[in-house]
Amino acid sequence: MAHRAGGRALSLLRGRLPLHGPAAAGGCAVRGQARLGSSGAAVRKAPRAAGAEEAGEDAEVNTRKKTFTEVQTERSEQAERTVLIKCPPKLNEKKLLQYLSSHGNIESHFFFENRGIHAVIEFSEKNSIASLQDAIGIPSSAEHHVVPFKSRLFTFTLKNPVSQAAEETPVHLSPQSHIPVKELIQKLCDADSISSQMYILLNEYQLTEENIKLRFLACSLVRDFARAYFPDSTVKPFGSSVNTFGKLGCDVDMFLDFHDIRKHGTKMKKGPFEMEYQMKRLPSERLATQKILSVIGDCLDNFGPGCVGIQKILNARCPLVKFSHQPTGFQCDLSVSNSIAIKSSELLYIYGCLDSRVRALVFSVRCWARIHGLTNSVPGTWITNFSLTMMVMFFLQKRSPPIIPTLDQLKELADEKDKHVIGGYDCSFVSDLSKIKPTKNTETLDVLLGDFFEYFGNFDFRKNSINLRKGREINKPESSPLYIWNPFEQDLNISKNVNQPQLEKFVAMARESAWILQKEDKTQQVINKEPWGLAALLIPFGKSNPSKMKNRMKGLGSETIRSLLDSLKLNNATSLQKAAGK
Amino acid sequence: MAHRAGGRALSLLRGRLPLHGPAAAGGCAVRGQARLGSSGAAVRKAPRAAGAEEAGEDAEVNTRKKTFTEVQTERSEQAERTVLIKCPPKLNEKKLLQYLSSHGNIESHFFFENRGIHAVIEFSEKNSIASLQDAIGIPSSAEHHVVPFKSRLFTFTLKNPVSQAAEETPVHLSPQSHIPVKELIQKLCDADSISSQMYILLNEYQLTEENIKLRFLACSLVRDFARAYFPDSTVKPFGSSVNTFGKLGCDVDMFLDFHDIRKHGTKMKKGPFEMEYQMKRLPSERLATQKILSVIGDCLDNFGPGCVGIQKILNARCPLVKFSHQPTGFQCDLSVSNSIAIKSSELLYIYGCLDSRVRALVFSVRCWARIHGLTNSVPGTWITNFSLTMMVMFFLQKRSPPIIPTLDQLKELADEKDKHVIGGYDCSFVSDLSKIKPTKNTETLDVLLGDFFEYFGNFDFRKNSINLRKGREINKPESSPLYIWNPFEQDLNISKNVNQPQLEKFVAMARESAWILQKEDKTQQVINKEPWGLAALLIPFGKSNPSKMKNRMKGLGSETIRSLLDSLKLNNATSLQKAAGK
Repeated sequence: MAHRAGGRALSLLRGRLPLHGPAAAGGCAVRGQARLGSSGAAVRKAPRAAGAEEAGEDAEVNTRKKTFTEVQTERSEQAERTVLIKCPPKLNEKKLLQYLSSHGNIESHFFFENRGIHAVIEFSEKNSIASLQDAIGIPSSAEHHVVPFKSRLFTFTLKNPVSQAAEETPVHLSPQSHIPVKELIQKLCDADSISSQMYILLNEYQLTEENIKLRFLACSLVRDFARAYFPDSTVKPFGSSVNTFGKLGCDVDMFLDFHDIRKHGTKMKKGPFEMEYQMKRLPSERLATQKILSVIGDCLDNFGPGCVGIQKILNARCPLVKFSHQPTGFQCDLSVSNSIAIKSSELLYIYGCLDSRVRALVFSVRCWARIHGLTNSVPGTWITNFSLTMMVMFFLQKRSPPIIPTLDQLKELADEKDKHVIGGYDCSFVSDLSKIKPTKNTETLDVLLGDFFEYFGNFDFRKNSINLRKGREINKPESSPLYIWNPFEQDLNISKNVNQPQLEKFVAMARESAWILQKEDKTQQVINKEPWGLAALLIPFGKSNPSKMKNRMKGLGSETIRSLLDSLKLNNATSLQKAAGK
Repeated sequence: MAHRAGGRALSLLRGRLPLHGPAAAGGCAVRGQARLGSSGAAVRKAPRAAGAEEAGEDAEVNTRKKTFTEVQTERSEQAERTVLIKCPPKLNEKKLLQYLSSHGNIESHFFFENRGIHAVIEFSEKNSIASLQDAIGIPSSAEHHVVPFKSRLFTFTLKNPVSQAAEETPVHLSPQSHIPVKELIQKLCDADSISSQMYILLNEYQLTEENIKLRFLACSLVRDFARAYFPDSTVKPFGSSVNTFGKLGCDVDMFLDFHDIRKHGTKMKKGPFEMEYQMKRLPSERLATQKILSVIGDCLDNFGPGCVGIQKILNARCPLVKFSHQPTGFQCDLSVSNSIAIKSSELLYIYGCLDSRVRALVFSVRCWARIHGLTNSVPGTWITNFSLTMMVMFFLQKRSPPIIPTLDQLKELADEKDKHVIGGYDCSFVSDLSKIKPTKNTETLDVLLGDFFEYFGNFDFRKNSINLRKGREINKPESSPLYIWNPFEQDLNISKNVNQPQLEKFVAMARESAWILQKEDKTQQVINKEPWGLAALLIPFGKSNPSKMKNRMKGLGSETIRSLLDSLKLNNATSLQKAAGK
């Protein structure tokens, strides 16, 4: 196995793994893994660092899939036992591990590149970290002073870099970002079916096991700040980091949870006395939330190594603190516990785990939408990723036979411990994946992708709304251009922000895409070295008159395409989208 | 022993203890104590809560006096084992203690009044607090939300106040403020000598053992905030809380100390590696200090129960955070470690412990200065308490034989472990009190008080400066009206702020006071029920023409004096001073 410092080489390497096809992703597939990892679901084996076990585990492990809560708890607990070490450009991996082992057994480790090489070390026992921390010094220099906050972020240097450099070998680096769209398109062209293309895209874009670990680590490091004052509080990721639909590079949404503290808020009653804590009292929970977030934001800003660009957005409906966490490379949004948001994450997790086609279709549609400027990373009148995902889910509920169950069906399967009523809304649904019967639907992704575009190209948005609870269209309760029922807060439209022009653009693009897929002649395109299938959909159609663009690539050789792509500077989806004029 | 809820009754009670006279205060006397308390020096026994041991310990304990550092360490450690409980107006002390004892042995306890009754409970073991905290609830109510920061401040309530009230008896309350000047003056008039008057004043004004404990507790509670992020940091009181010259009601100056952390700032060096913490780097220590104080100020403000009125004064030469700590009733100033300020506290501690006359004279002169508007609680051109204390020390060094040694003499007695060079200044002096020979001077305080006023009434301030290191006048190095050498930073004048009019006022008041003491006829004054001795000096002289006021009280009966004092609303030194027109 090649060991190279560049992420590019690895991306190519990963591309060669036999990851496409439904058989390869039977569960909550995470790129590059095929053992029952601690994420619980059957996941693919990652290209491991030297010394880790390699082949022989690619068969699916046949155990009960863990529930969302079990997986989250396990990953949080792993993160608590993990440290992050900034390393010199070249290092002797074996010696580093050898040294660290003197503080305790290392359960797992990986390296990644983020303005320098970093090692993520997971110990078997939490107290190994205390042992390591005791041995670590505070940086001292005449030029600077430090804020002596002792975190789990260390810097590792070689005493004598020159003499030691010779014996160091490059370490394997786990990729933390997806490949540029340009490379993706070329890779897609080499596939043998649209279905394969969609799994390749999924495999390139989805979060890796290592990236998920890093996300939990970021939360755990923020938890250290919260726990300083609120020892029983936790910080947990929600949304795309945990719902199986996260893309490499997406933000880490995390929330601070006091739930456990407040649960134990019973007064001591012994003898004739009552004893309670003296605490700051505030007229509303919102004010308490704002104050706590504000102070934790200041702590991160002033004490947290590599916490920069802190923005407090405390007057929002859901107060939050945004910051950039340089050591892990994540953009983070910290808010306070929002039970419904967690339930939404769990619902998507379940849908994502049920059938491998679900995530493949969602990733393809979202990549397509982004390239054509239908979604955007900033808030506005664009369709959100969440809305788009819900549209895919609805489409899959509508297949015959359905590929995924409706929310009402999931609720019927719920047992007593799955009962959750949050703020008056019944958010109950089954948590045990094994209780859900596998679908009898065997349609290929080739069919599903084309039908998705056709379905929404012809959907009567003027009259109908999308309801995942029932799994059918319902007359719109009000006149928003796009109406998608919030799965839990049933009186809310999750796509209220979308205006008529944006919806029309979506419909036009869907029709155009359906038309392209129906009309194309794959054999001819492959001979002509033209983008075909999904690849053809990921090239901007031109904004003036999409229908005139249908033969836009005809007659252009691959060299021409390459130079066209170059001229558009298609390094990633964002700049691609900008190039497409949004 | 009377058990009353009112502080006033206790003040009167304390007045009856035989506390005046040098024999009663052989060491670092603290009002109302006569055993070798944990403060180290021989201290008087406080009026204890019911059940505590009482008589039989009034004899002085003949052990080595502890050093300043030993006393501070011991008190800090006590404070870590202490909790503060807000109690209902009436409570059954025995039952409370009985309940608390179920969490561990109680080492000491006392009650005090501060917007309600509070109990200070010192456990023998620190882990008793964790046990108690586990059993305590979080307040819950529909009307308010709390910031769930779990401190060592609790509220204790009776389940059924009406039925239980009958069996409750008032607890003994330890006074936390000194008696009003009006009461003090009447008490002084009943004494039999000026010396006795001075000890009465000292006894009424000085910090009690309980008040000192409460000061260390306030620091320890602030330490809990700092320790959340900087586990090895400490918060220690300095200045008047610990230098034996503090007056009941004075602010708590405290500093945050990272010294221990930075001391261990050596890098881990093992094998070919160096490992250090990633930490926020700042271009100056001052900036680091400002950021840390700022965040801790926010934490106190937002999380700290009863922490109110937080003011950040971060751009001052010595950045600090001021706040009012309601549970203990203290006004606090939190700054960051200032080694020279600590050395100053220790120096005063040594002088205060050496001879009982030192503190009696300082307290009398400071009370006199405050009443006559020579000092003020706000910064300005007034002489500071510190400068005034240094002037008394200098006067005592100049007696023949000297009552206290010069700083150079204390430095000669220093051994190796006493060597301290701070910022280039030699701050070494002996820490072991037993190495300092007791003075052979036997002058009474009657003599010393009169001579103090005479000495400074005639001091050549134009030509001479005051130097405690040498114990003699030195030609002024520059033209400040009052020049007192900083004992450690020898190039600084601690009274640079004093202007010529303020100095002249001081000289005039000193002369007037010397004249009053020389001319007065005590027998006649006692017969006429006129204030005499020290009492006569604590009544404003009138600001227009002090010399005309010399017979100001002559012929006035005690009733007349009382109504005069009433009209001036002499409830405390501050309002008295305001009445005196400053």
